Amino acid sequence: METARAVDVLIIGAGPAGLALANWFRNSSISVLLVDKKPGPTPRGQAEGLKSTTNEIFDAFGIGPQITAESWRLEEIAIWGPREDGGGIVREQVVQDKVDELGTVRETQLQQSRVEHYMLQNLKAHENIAIRYSTRPTSVEIDDSCSHLGDDYPIIATLAHVSENESNGEAPTNVSSPWSPDTSHGETIRAKYIAGCDGARSWLRKQLDVVLEGDLTDSVFGVVDFIPKTNFPDIRRVCYLRAAKGTILVVPRNDREVRLYIPVESGSALPDPKELTLDRIMAAAREIIAPYSLDAGAVSWWSAYRVGQRVGSHFSRCHERAFLLGDAVHTHSPKAGQGMNTSVQDAYNLGWKLRLVLQGHVLSSPEALLGTYEAERRPVAQDLIAFDKGYLKLFSAPSSQFDTEFLRAMKFTTGLSIRYPKSPAVQLPRGLDELGPSLLKADLVPGKRLLNFQVVYQADCTVARVQTRMQATGAFRVIVFAGDIAEPRLLARLQTLGKFLGDRDAGLGRLTVPYDGREYAAWQRVPVEVLVVHCAERERVELLELEEVYRPWSDDQGYDYWRVFADAESVLEGHGRVHERLELDRQKGCCTVVRPDGYVGAVVDMDDVERLREYFQGVGMLEHPVPRR
Amino acid sequence: METARAVDVLIIGAGPAGLALANWFRNSSISVLLVDKKPGPTPRGQAEGLKSTTNEIFDAFGIGPQITAESWRLEEIAIWGPREDGGGIVREQVVQDKVDELGTVRETQLQQSRVEHYMLQNLKAHENIAIRYSTRPTSVEIDDSCSHLGDDYPIIATLAHVSENESNGEAPTNVSSPWSPDTSHGETIRAKYIAGCDGARSWLRKQLDVVLEGDLTDSVFGVVDFIPKTNFPDIRRVCYLRAAKGTILVVPRNDREVRLYIPVESGSALPDPKELTLDRIMAAAREIIAPYSLDAGAVSWWSAYRVGQRVGSHFSRCHERAFLLGDAVHTHSPKAGQGMNTSVQDAYNLGWKLRLVLQGHVLSSPEALLGTYEAERRPVAQDLIAFDKGYLKLFSAPSSQFDTEFLRAMKFTTGLSIRYPKSPAVQLPRGLDELGPSLLKADLVPGKRLLNFQVVYQADCTVARVQTRMQATGAFRVIVFAGDIAEPRLLARLQTLGKFLGDRDAGLGRLTVPYDGREYAAWQRVPVEVLVVHCAERERVELLELEEVYRPWSDDQGYDYWRVFADAESVLEGHGRVHERLELDRQKGCCTVVRPDGYVGAVVDMDDVERLREYFQGVGMLEHPVPRR
Repeated sequence: METARAVDVLIIGAGPAGLALANWFRNSSISVLLVDKKPGPTPRGQAEGLKSTTNEIFDAFGIGPQITAESWRLEEIAIWGPREDGGGIVREQVVQDKVDELGTVRETQLQQSRVEHYMLQNLKAHENIAIRYSTRPTSVEIDDSCSHLGDDYPIIATLAHVSENESNGEAPTNVSSPWSPDTSHGETIRAKYIAGCDGARSWLRKQLDVVLEGDLTDSVFGVVDFIPKTNFPDIRRVCYLRAAKGTILVVPRNDREVRLYIPVESGSALPDPKELTLDRIMAAAREIIAPYSLDAGAVSWWSAYRVGQRVGSHFSRCHERAFLLGDAVHTHSPKAGQGMNTSVQDAYNLGWKLRLVLQGHVLSSPEALLGTYEAERRPVAQDLIAFDKGYLKLFSAPSSQFDTEFLRAMKFTTGLSIRYPKSPAVQLPRGLDELGPSLLKADLVPGKRLLNFQVVYQADCTVARVQTRMQATGAFRVIVFAGDIAEPRLLARLQTLGKFLGDRDAGLGRLTVPYDGREYAAWQRVPVEVLVVHCAERERVELLELEEVYRPWSDDQGYDYWRVFADAESVLEGHGRVHERLELDRQKGCCTVVRPDGYVGAVVDMDDVERLREYFQGVGMLEHPVPRR
Repeated sequence: METARAVDVLIIGAGPAGLALANWFRNSSISVLLVDKKPGPTPRGQAEGLKSTTNEIFDAFGIGPQITAESWRLEEIAIWGPREDGGGIVREQVVQDKVDELGTVRETQLQQSRVEHYMLQNLKAHENIAIRYSTRPTSVEIDDSCSHLGDDYPIIATLAHVSENESNGEAPTNVSSPWSPDTSHGETIRAKYIAGCDGARSWLRKQLDVVLEGDLTDSVFGVVDFIPKTNFPDIRRVCYLRAAKGTILVVPRNDREVRLYIPVESGSALPDPKELTLDRIMAAAREIIAPYSLDAGAVSWWSAYRVGQRVGSHFSRCHERAFLLGDAVHTHSPKAGQGMNTSVQDAYNLGWKLRLVLQGHVLSSPEALLGTYEAERRPVAQDLIAFDKGYLKLFSAPSSQFDTEFLRAMKFTTGLSIRYPKSPAVQLPRGLDELGPSLLKADLVPGKRLLNFQVVYQADCTVARVQTRMQATGAFRVIVFAGDIAEPRLLARLQTLGKFLGDRDAGLGRLTVPYDGREYAAWQRVPVEVLVVHCAERERVELLELEEVYRPWSDDQGYDYWRVFADAESVLEGHGRVHERLELDRQKGCCTVVRPDGYVGAVVDMDDVERLREYFQGVGMLEHPVPRR
């Protein structure tokens, strides 16, 4: 009997969550197998809305430009309500679809199939990642007694080929890739970790005895992607059309198509979604949009479903060997456009933790780091359901507070409200178990996502967005906000910190400087990259006079010019004003740890190097006790 | 004997000019064959600098996002000169690399091989365009007595396979495309048009008895792409390092590489470029850059050459059957980064004229339209040589006028000075044979490139750049600057003009409205697309109440929402201020014809519809006399 094939990570489901998770393992030797029962990538339909955080993730995966180029930007939201005389609907207001803090596009639209396409393309060149369509798991056994520090494969799963009949008769799509369906039957796979990204009817969730807590709602929705023939004047805007029978959500798609979410009936007379027809859905839409006309030209996709608002009882099981992501552990209404976003963000939270552990960078208690996945993402899903329940109330009656409340909702759906709790990966300031309100006010808070601020490179004044700069390599970043380093006092502090950061014996050099010589490739493998943002006049700073950790040398690639930034004006794109936006003291500065997923891990004083060391000890990347000379 | 294969356009040379020309024939039934003696795409070296006009062309070809994402932006130019005490060099000033009028990035850097890659990729899906590498022409005969209105193939060319030995022993690069080298020998091709894009040693140029007028200069340059090991502080900026022995030009490349153009010797002791070594070139560089150190890490490409400043005696021959483009008809120094730009722009000027003729849209004297290629592009090349001769003088001695002169040079190299002369494709205002100085001041002038201004769509407030909006489909655009159409008087004028533009009998409807029904594809084939830019308050304009030519209907695609723009503020990207920048009268407006290549063809008053008709008669797209009811 042959030995079963062994992979590091087995991912069930190649939708947005599964593909995003797999993207974390590019440029590594971690072996990954994705399986999906579908015969190929999703051809159409499903989710569409992308929020800025999700687009930042695509930037970090290196596929941002393509996705942005193909996406449709959403600029305006129109709120319509019933006319006072009872005859039809009237436009109540038009809201700009923006959140000032972001300084960038808040919301774009691209259909799930295209998002999946780009994430798939991005895996092609990586031989450590394989994908098999028409494949489903049939059994899984997990031995949760193994240590995460060993090299065991405690998961045994069997896979089976899905015949065309089983996959709802859907014809295989044309996959021009080396990942064509494998025709083998009943293969056994051993794995170190397993991730269930297999949607609302998750197979793995059932195997793990995880239950969805919450309820189906009283809402049955039809969703239709089509070419509208209508004289409704706001058909190219996002619209909420409020009526007694429910609220239609209009979302423009690329070119001339539009998506409508149409409440079909509510209350006691709930229809069975399976019995709904396109005609009935369109009739319900016409009733709400009257007196405007509405006919459907070509319909490219439609569906009907009853909304559930449920969260999984667990997001991980078996001592952090098995994980559930995306729709497998949370379902909610489509109104806030959170489905694909939350799935991708779940994966973005989990992937780097697995990568760090599998690459051997975590020397102690990896399960503590892996446990932060559930601790961080389950509350997000719970908040999302709570938000979902309250969201429609916003539209139920005119309110003098509407603008404020709608803006708050936009911030929520953009993810700006998320703050992960204290954990091995989130260090709160010394002496504080909980952050006080004053610290919460600032925009540089452990557990929150680092604002995607704009800076310019010291070397050449080209513009960088910090989240794009922090590509998804698995590396942490220590970002030193150094203040006005044209002042000798502040320059001296930066240099002192630089010595600590680069010192392999007494400092963090084991994490920031490669062992094996001076090769560029080695520099790319260190788990912590050091970056500097200063606010001095650019012409008064000499890059090559800074400590080497800030502009390291490699024999084959020369200096790394791309670690030092100025909070200065770009020739074309204006001033990022980082210090104002993050409420930083230009005469004091601070030092931050940013996690591989772009969330702030720690904020410490420039000279509080022990707290830096403690952070990486907490993650398990430095040993206790501290080695000293 | 088999009948020789017939193609519409035979292109010799698949470099930037040849590929750009081929890109004009996408989405058409025009058959194109590109041949190149190289075994595959250019692997490295050659040209790099891209100016904004060239990037606009890539946008119009639909490959702008990819090219922009991979390009390096150039933000600053540092001018260095000799120290007054004679010891080494000193930084004299840093200039921002921008031209305010553009409102966009002026200059980017991407190596020719990558630019070619994206232009090649863009041809892949188009079965009417074929490429053969390792193929060279061996003979050509042209019967120039044929009419351009017939369906003759007056060009007979023979092609031969180039063996590996002939191609300088260069190994074939890995071309993952259906265009692998054809192994056939001595094939005969019949063609309607032939284009020589075959570089400075053009084979076709010799066949056509075209001579290069001008001289080789006294400058021998070495050019080196490498990883520098240097303490020169401006190595990531574009630098002009002036010294007695000549001026080094530093151009940063992606990541850590830099390109240097190094004058090796000048005056009477000219070295033979073929005998120059990398060591000798680097030694010459070190002498100029001293006291800074300069060593070469990995060198990815280097070359040496003597600069010629020459222009072809003709750009077209044989009654507009044969054309020469790019380096085949102009050579100059690399200092202004014009090589690849001018080549792509030559092709962008010619391609739409060939397309229009080959698609049968030109009903009379096609040779007059085709003749504008030479009339427009040869003066550009001559101006470029004149500029090239004067450019170095800028750097020869400190001047109080330096800033002004350098800015003027930047405008020149950006192409902002180009104005094509009066021709069938450029109509000057009535009663003016030459434009007076007052009209030249404005930024909306026949013969000049339309400023790539920013507007927002009336329908949804998404942002558009006009040159990106005008994809390279071969269509002219009538852009109506309609003024403040919230005023009934101006709205009425727009509607009257709209009736004329859409009227198939008495107006331009034969050009703007498809014959064959209401299908979307037919709309895409009309040779003139109508666009509107207004400056009314957006909320006071109802798109669907405008004349149908401004928002046409098709049964399968619904309304076209993408023809009407507002000169208004974008949610995120600010206000384009088109009316101010183009000096337009908001109470009057005007109507412009923009050629398929983005140059202004005509500017007429809103009610001067006869001049519009005359323009298209001049191009040959409408018959004389005017058909009337």
